[in-house]
Amino acid sequence: MSSQGRGRYHHGDLRHALLVAAERLIGEQGAERVSLRGIARAAGVSHAAPYHHFGDLEELLASVAASGFTRLRQSMLDRSAAARETDTLDQLQEAGVAYVSFAAENPELYRLMFSGRLRDSRNHPDLARASDAAYEALDELLTRAVDAKGAEATDATLSHAARASWALVHGLAMLLIDGRLEVDPDTPADVRTLVRNVTAVFGRGLRNLREVRL
Amino acid sequence: MSSQGRGRYHHGDLRHALLVAAERLIGEQGAERVSLRGIARAAGVSHAAPYHHFGDLEELLASVAASGFTRLRQSMLDRSAAARETDTLDQLQEAGVAYVSFAAENPELYRLMFSGRLRDSRNHPDLARASDAAYEALDELLTRAVDAKGAEATDATLSHAARASWALVHGLAMLLIDGRLEVDPDTPADVRTLVRNVTAVFGRGLRNLREVRL
Repeated sequence: MSSQGRGRYHHGDLRHALLVAAERLIGEQGAERVSLRGIARAAGVSHAAPYHHFGDLEELLASVAASGFTRLRQSMLDRSAAARETDTLDQLQEAGVAYVSFAAENPELYRLMFSGRLRDSRNHPDLARASDAAYEALDELLTRAVDAKGAEATDATLSHAARASWALVHGLAMLLIDGRLEVDPDTPADVRTLVRNVTAVFGRGLRNLREVRL
Repeated sequence: MSSQGRGRYHHGDLRHALLVAAERLIGEQGAERVSLRGIARAAGVSHAAPYHHFGDLEELLASVAASGFTRLRQSMLDRSAAARETDTLDQLQEAGVAYVSFAAENPELYRLMFSGRLRDSRNHPDLARASDAAYEALDELLTRAVDAKGAEATDATLSHAARASWALVHGLAMLLIDGRLEVDPDTPADVRTLVRNVTAVFGRGLRNLREVRL
């Protein structure tokens, strides 16, 4: 072990440094291309150092993905809270803008968060919790928007509507970062316009949720 | 060249045999794992044979993906036509069922169709045409559904609504095949129920499109 790897970080700092280095490398190369050794090198520590905190590469990637979901959730909450003077439906749309913008700003991280390799939640309980919390934040904003409209939606209807809102922003996010839409993911104002326009039809459906036949 | 590779197929048959073998291998292993050599072996031809029809592996994968988009389009048209006795909105929803069912039945092919490696349409004009045609079929069904409701939607509104319908089914398809929804992709009736329920809110928005503020 080189002098770099010994005692350069306190325990928690090393973990944090590894996560930061991993996320940077994932952003540059995509998650399929990173290795524990490469992450250790990027963090300036010995190649044995990651094993103090992570059993293997997958465990480290799962921690990066969990942190992504936590920030995605926070971004939705912040952005909808900033619109609190407006309509609850506007707040939901702004959460959608936050969601798609997060993917546009962190395309490789977003792909990792939804990648099949981390799918088995039994292996990654922290990731499953963070991902559930993000979904629940969206679900709550949606329920609040529907409630404020006085629509007497059943729990089943609300649950379908929540899945629909997730599918809509996930689909938009994937189409955008895969270059399938004529919108530049690096121009925040264009991303916002895209999401506002595309979610408008859906929002109109929420306003009329009472009438939805299931 | 072995006797297998020589004269076993007529010209067009060889191309078809290679596409069939490639799609089978992609379904079994995912597109990242297949090679031209493996495809030739699976088709029972010499490893030089693919070069009679395809410049490289990417060109062959693009042809498989183009065929996927053509069948996806046809499936949407067939399924919506089968619902022609019903409401135009039902027909659009059935096209959505066809879309998501196609992804559920061909998850690895669907991933390939949207994968970044085939993104540059200048390299793959046939794929771009097939993909555009599939999108236009969805767009037309949507326009017909909106028109039949007598909503006086502008072209811009219709174009946003078409993007939204695509994002919705693409998001549902991806979440489903990535195991993110508590629905079994291998049970067609469950997939149909999922799509009908989730698109119901969106359909309600289309019924009220006139009122959508953009």
